Amino acid sequence: MTEQAVANIGVVGLAVMGSNLARNLASREGNTVAVYNRTTARTDQLLNEHEDLGFVAAHDMDAFVASLARPRTAIVMVQAGRGTDAVIEQLAQRFEPGDIIVDGGNADFHDTIRREHALRERGLHFVGTGISGGEEGALNGPSIMPGGSDEAWQTLGPILRSIAAVAEGEPCVTHVGTDGAGHFVKMVHNGIEYADMQLIAESYDLLRRIGGHEPDALVGVFEEWNRGDLESYLIEITAEVLKQRDADTGRPLVDVIRDEAGSKGTGVWTVQNAVGLGVPVSGIGEAVFARAVSSKPAQRAAVQRSVGERPAPAPAPEGFEDDVRAALYASKVVAYAQGFDLIVAGGLAYDWDIDLGAIARIWRGGCIIRAQFLNRIVEAYQRDPQLPTLLVDPYFADAVARGEAAWRRIVGIAAASGVPAPGFSSALAYFDSLASDRLPASLIQGQRDFFGAHTYRRVDREGTFHTLWSQDRREVAQEPSTH
Amino acid sequence: MTEQAVANIGVVGLAVMGSNLARNLASREGNTVAVYNRTTARTDQLLNEHEDLGFVAAHDMDAFVASLARPRTAIVMVQAGRGTDAVIEQLAQRFEPGDIIVDGGNADFHDTIRREHALRERGLHFVGTGISGGEEGALNGPSIMPGGSDEAWQTLGPILRSIAAVAEGEPCVTHVGTDGAGHFVKMVHNGIEYADMQLIAESYDLLRRIGGHEPDALVGVFEEWNRGDLESYLIEITAEVLKQRDADTGRPLVDVIRDEAGSKGTGVWTVQNAVGLGVPVSGIGEAVFARAVSSKPAQRAAVQRSVGERPAPAPAPEGFEDDVRAALYASKVVAYAQGFDLIVAGGLAYDWDIDLGAIARIWRGGCIIRAQFLNRIVEAYQRDPQLPTLLVDPYFADAVARGEAAWRRIVGIAAASGVPAPGFSSALAYFDSLASDRLPASLIQGQRDFFGAHTYRRVDREGTFHTLWSQDRREVAQEPSTH
Repeated sequence: MTEQAVANIGVVGLAVMGSNLARNLASREGNTVAVYNRTTARTDQLLNEHEDLGFVAAHDMDAFVASLARPRTAIVMVQAGRGTDAVIEQLAQRFEPGDIIVDGGNADFHDTIRREHALRERGLHFVGTGISGGEEGALNGPSIMPGGSDEAWQTLGPILRSIAAVAEGEPCVTHVGTDGAGHFVKMVHNGIEYADMQLIAESYDLLRRIGGHEPDALVGVFEEWNRGDLESYLIEITAEVLKQRDADTGRPLVDVIRDEAGSKGTGVWTVQNAVGLGVPVSGIGEAVFARAVSSKPAQRAAVQRSVGERPAPAPAPEGFEDDVRAALYASKVVAYAQGFDLIVAGGLAYDWDIDLGAIARIWRGGCIIRAQFLNRIVEAYQRDPQLPTLLVDPYFADAVARGEAAWRRIVGIAAASGVPAPGFSSALAYFDSLASDRLPASLIQGQRDFFGAHTYRRVDREGTFHTLWSQDRREVAQEPSTH
Repeated sequence: MTEQAVANIGVVGLAVMGSNLARNLASREGNTVAVYNRTTARTDQLLNEHEDLGFVAAHDMDAFVASLARPRTAIVMVQAGRGTDAVIEQLAQRFEPGDIIVDGGNADFHDTIRREHALRERGLHFVGTGISGGEEGALNGPSIMPGGSDEAWQTLGPILRSIAAVAEGEPCVTHVGTDGAGHFVKMVHNGIEYADMQLIAESYDLLRRIGGHEPDALVGVFEEWNRGDLESYLIEITAEVLKQRDADTGRPLVDVIRDEAGSKGTGVWTVQNAVGLGVPVSGIGEAVFARAVSSKPAQRAAVQRSVGERPAPAPAPEGFEDDVRAALYASKVVAYAQGFDLIVAGGLAYDWDIDLGAIARIWRGGCIIRAQFLNRIVEAYQRDPQLPTLLVDPYFADAVARGEAAWRRIVGIAAASGVPAPGFSSALAYFDSLASDRLPASLIQGQRDFFGAHTYRRVDREGTFHTLWSQDRREVAQEPSTH
């Protein structure tokens, strides 16, 4: 039996993300979508439930490939890891030069680079693509971050533009860069998402423990924040979560949910890569650490048994909610500034030409961190594409300056009250580090030279120097030590 | 020419660390030390300068191996990385079953595990060994952290005990665990060293910028601290560095050294592995981040041009120096607690049976973080080898409780004054997270369930639950999502 090559795009893997993406594709003018899933029942179910979408269903890989028009273009939506390699290989064995394999899962960008290079040698295009927005985004319009070659983008671009979220009239997709650039940027997106969620969680905790507001009362606070410059999906759903009451107990759901935060790994990857690239993403780091602390119930219980009386929360001063909001905004600017620094460093390290403004643009819709705020970042990179940090863009510099005093008060009151605010305090320390004309790193360099002959540089002339600490303490010019 | 197999130990690689270690070995009763270096001149120099030490010099690898008595035991002291693999292979080709190759460099413990397994298949012992103490430690007595097999330890133990530092009458060496355990623990040692140095640097900065003390005046402060419970090598050399005046300018050397801190990678490794293992090492993380921030002069300059007037430092309150000391001590307890948690997690993940008390014992002498403090950790694990965190040991719990109010004041005054204290504030937030009976992680779980159907657990019953957020908001019991 020969199939007709009628589909301009195919989807392999029809779990929720895959089938939603397939439905999204099929619902757009001009797309004919081939679908294939290892377990046939799932393919049949999709077809039965969505007869109107004109899916071309395949019950084996040969039929799937035969149903694709050239250049064949297939989006793989399977669990990241080994499964991905197996499916890619099945496609690669059947594809011909010029055909395109897209990995739409949350792959490690190192794997994506490896796969892209291997398939390129076989004449195939491989496009690792970040897709953000969860199940609903996949169905109704995600933010899409494809890497891969320019040539693949020629074919893929119109298809992805047809299904992406639209923000301010523009589809939330851009060709991020070659090979692993798309998955790298998706990783950073998720890292920023961790930081943003942690900052919102700290705000909630402060408003509750120091402000004295119950969850019900906080719904209005977050709804109000969502009408101002914090307007964002995460603030919006915070109000929704706080609004929710548990049907069984009548209590706020947030008090019924165990306070142990899980994670899926992209936050961890972000921190691992950032420290490897020398980028201080303390906002993301503290968020990842905070989830890890929360997930150690035995350790937490032991400390709670061991500590004496906790400090009484300081009484909430006048304007406390506004102070929290200002601290949240300033800390958020820091988290995004660090995230964009990581994209810059990744671009340099892996030779990607990434348009930072375009990244901010495609995050304005479809994805978890979508926010008004992203428009300000778009504008900042329009004003200066070479911005050394978002913190010096006039808009953000002014916003932080206006919130700075409140930010300092909040960090102080949290410390005095025993309410943990690692995100707020770490962001402030980062800002103060950049703003300090001298850092005690000079003492650290002195210590390192003392115990390890690691050498130091001088403020007043070029070169590398070492003090003969264990001899007569003369300073000698010398090459940096390599051991 | 046949060499006589007279040496019980050999050293390959005679750069400063290698030749110092060889001298240390040769100076101990009972050791005859074979030495070999690729560049012969270095071997000859060592021999000429230390004729009295009875080195058995080899000018090629065959002669080196021939000079070793069985079981042949060679310590490799070359640059970590590819060079190590090459030298190991040269030895392995000449060694016979039961012989022992020791890597004394700062290897990545993953490499050590790989090498140990590969050499074990060839019947050889491979022992990755952390050696701390820098050049001086290598010569006069380092802290030594060997991994590898029990069998290798039988031969190697007495040799390493002969050269290790001695603290409280005990040699600073123990068989840490199998394969990569030694290099893992050395990595954690270095991570803790980063955290400790950052905390000291913050103390200095606060004493200077808020306390108003010039470096000269701070020498006495650190010398005094070094007579109390902060007594440690790092505090001692801090006083030495602050004491030093630049001969050219007459200024304190710490003001002449550029405030851009470098690193050699083990801090980065520590953070990467800790986040991968789910261990919140925020103290080490902030220290690594702080060095990274300091090393971005262009970004710092841009922010300094952009920000307005900095907050005036708050006037130093009564007892400020004592407060800083208390904050340093409490933050240091947190940093060590986190580091020991990482050792526990590594032991579980890699199947090492690590005696935490023994680790504290061997860090009391020879290494960079040697300190009185380590005795308290030894005692803590004597009291309870299963301690869930150092923070609940009665001694440390009491010490932190006594410093707690001061710690809170210091974090508050640093925030108010614009003096960055990421180590202090992060440590306090960690402590407050563990001590809080509820964390806002429940809100994060609610958000994750909302946007990604990641599910949550309940406080009042077992199971995994999901709220149908986009439908009627009923709660349903279900398996955790896997996508």
